[in-house]
Amino acid sequence: MSSSRLETFSDGVFAIAATLLILNVRVTGSDLGRSLDRAWPSYAAYAVSFVTIGIMWANHHGVFSQIDKVDRTFLLVNVLFLMAVAFVPFPTALVAEHLRDGGLEPAALAYGFTLTVTAVFYSALWFYASVRRRLLRQEADARVVSGITRSFLPGPWVYLTATLLALWNPKVSVVLYAVIAVFYMFESALFGRRSPAVE
Amino acid sequence: MSSSRLETFSDGVFAIAATLLILNVRVTGSDLGRSLDRAWPSYAAYAVSFVTIGIMWANHHGVFSQIDKVDRTFLLVNVLFLMAVAFVPFPTALVAEHLRDGGLEPAALAYGFTLTVTAVFYSALWFYASVRRRLLRQEADARVVSGITRSFLPGPWVYLTATLLALWNPKVSVVLYAVIAVFYMFESALFGRRSPAVE
Amino acid sequence: MSSSRLETFSDGVFAIAATLLILNVRVTGSDLGRSLDRAWPSYAAYAVSFVTIGIMWANHHGVFSQIDKVDRTFLLVNVLFLMAVAFVPFPTALVAEHLRDGGLEPAALAYGFTLTVTAVFYSALWFYASVRRRLLRQEADARVVSGITRSFLPGPWVYLTATLLALWNPKVSVVLYAVIAVFYMFESALFGRRSPAVE
Amino acid sequence: MSSSRLETFSDGVFAIAATLLILNVRVTGSDLGRSLDRAWPSYAAYAVSFVTIGIMWANHHGVFSQIDKVDRTFLLVNVLFLMAVAFVPFPTALVAEHLRDGGLEPAALAYGFTLTVTAVFYSALWFYASVRRRLLRQEADARVVSGITRSFLPGPWVYLTATLLALWNPKVSVVLYAVIAVFYMFESALFGRRSPAVE
Repeated sequence: MSSSRLETFSDGVFAIAATLLILNVRVTGSDLGRSLDRAWPSYAAYAVSFVTIGIMWANHHGVFSQIDKVDRTFLLVNVLFLMAVAFVPFPTALVAEHLRDGGLEPAALAYGFTLTVTAVFYSALWFYASVRRRLLRQEADARVVSGITRSFLPGPWVYLTATLLALWNPKVSVVLYAVIAVFYMFESALFGRRSPAVE
Repeated sequence: MSSSRLETFSDGVFAIAATLLILNVRVTGSDLGRSLDRAWPSYAAYAVSFVTIGIMWANHHGVFSQIDKVDRTFLLVNVLFLMAVAFVPFPTALVAEHLRDGGLEPAALAYGFTLTVTAVFYSALWFYASVRRRLLRQEADARVVSGITRSFLPGPWVYLTATLLALWNPKVSVVLYAVIAVFYMFESALFGRRSPAVE
Repeated sequence: MSSSRLETFSDGVFAIAATLLILNVRVTGSDLGRSLDRAWPSYAAYAVSFVTIGIMWANHHGVFSQIDKVDRTFLLVNVLFLMAVAFVPFPTALVAEHLRDGGLEPAALAYGFTLTVTAVFYSALWFYASVRRRLLRQEADARVVSGITRSFLPGPWVYLTATLLALWNPKVSVVLYAVIAVFYMFESALFGRRSPAVE
Repeated sequence: MSSSRLETFSDGVFAIAATLLILNVRVTGSDLGRSLDRAWPSYAAYAVSFVTIGIMWANHHGVFSQIDKVDRTFLLVNVLFLMAVAFVPFPTALVAEHLRDGGLEPAALAYGFTLTVTAVFYSALWFYASVRRRLLRQEADARVVSGITRSFLPGPWVYLTATLLALWNPKVSVVLYAVIAVFYMFESALFGRRSPAVE
């Protein structure tokens, strides 16, 4: 299958980006017990970003199960998408570090902007593959395909909205990023059996 | 096989989490010879965590050999499990750094708590897959399945006990973490031929 | 297929080298908003190197689709090639850090030299495999093979030229590195359907 | 094939350990040009360790091509072997940092000791698999098997000797480590076609 190396490379980037998040969980200060308590924003940021990357990975899995072959354009849109995914650890560290100081607004904007760009490339990847069934498998079910399309449409707008809210109140943005991750996780788990992402 | 990408992603996280442990092995001080001698807690912590992650990987291998297909819930429980596995390098560094000072209690609690959570997600993964044989292969042997179930049941309790002992004496906890790793390694190696984990 | 582990290992190195680039994106300074603005060279360097590694990965994919079996020499030339690929994060960090100070000349030379060496090993890999069709698949199309050969020939010279220009004006070199990456990306995407790299 | 996940995990650790080496290539000092020149021990150490890990990977490939199935003991010896491989970046950084100061003796001992332990686990892995053809494929050629055995026998002794020489003159040790890597590389490349490691 010609898409198998694409999946190996993509899975590698997803796995590394998620695992590198731990390098930004750090504590400072002489009293380790209190430092560990005070570091909860690092743990929360780690969890939200890990789950977000994990869900993107799971959806990638779903997209590829509908795809038969890949061409160079798809390969390169996928590289741009992965470039955005691999960027996530950077704004994650910023949000964790500035959750309790005046730097939260730019940190929240950077985080949201990264996820918005990621969602845009993700949609581009899917629409390139699915428009006129360009790269789809012959047996791909039309209802499944339009189900994936519907689930990708809101992504960029949801993240863009959450990002722009940071200009008004960055804490609201950050809470929204967490809520979106938890929502997608439960939505997947609850409605997954009906969803097209896994056969 | 629909679980193959799940295995690629999981193997990636296991491999990266284990290999990143080396980034926390560091020496300071002007006399390199003495610094290398004094750094033995780093080596020990590296070895215990590497072996612990290695055993979890080997068992994951065993679980998947019984599984036929995966659904979204399984995918997401696996993401939560991997989130805990990828967290291990952080408390490993804490234990190594504080083995000889007053910070060992919180460090040992953090290490044990991480492994307890990991064991809980691991059991959840297995029970979700095996209850009423939800995701098992048709030909999965009932004795093998209940063997895996029995081997997973004590995990969270063993780690929780070792963790709570840190409130009394954190050194005892740390020694226990090492003993558990060595025990699982030998137990696997000695009784492995009879075990279901590898056919 | 005997080349499959070679591809797994290579994809791993590509994915890790690309993802590690994010560790060099860092900000300093008390005002996070301004620091994030001033850090644009880090983002640009991240993007250029990520895309460059991504294109090399996509071409590697194309090369392997023509190859039937591998021998030890090929394996080891591939190791040397990957050694150069995995080196890319180091000069990338140098260019990002020195884009606005007097250190740009050595940084640009280091970056270009690394990519020149990478291109040389890449060509060596392909010529070793394709001369007298040594490792090619029986059914590999002669036109496809000579198409790959033509696309590899200019690589080392293009990068060597861009590198040497740094002795005259390092900013011109750095702009050229970005232009080359963007050119290859669009060239691939636009002419990819006619290209041999993906069937 | 039941050994395929073992190979994915192992390839991941090999690829990550090799690629992480770049994180230890760093320069300090205000004049970047001179700093880059003075940092040649980092580049040399990077190259020697990358090639050493690459050759171990290539040989691992050779070993697995002879193996039919794996059991738990093999799995766990492989984990211990990978634990040693993943340790290599640490002493590599020490040697690079102390090549020109009084810390070279302990650094060279640490490097050599790590490679000696790696070679011991590697031999253990092979002998466990091959003694009485325990895990070998039915069709594994006896001459090929004894060829691999012969090539593994000297490994630990060669590295132990090079290590102990550091007590007399650590520079000689370090030069030997490089010579061994280059020797194995050329030996593989020149005699590879006759070697059993790749069919």
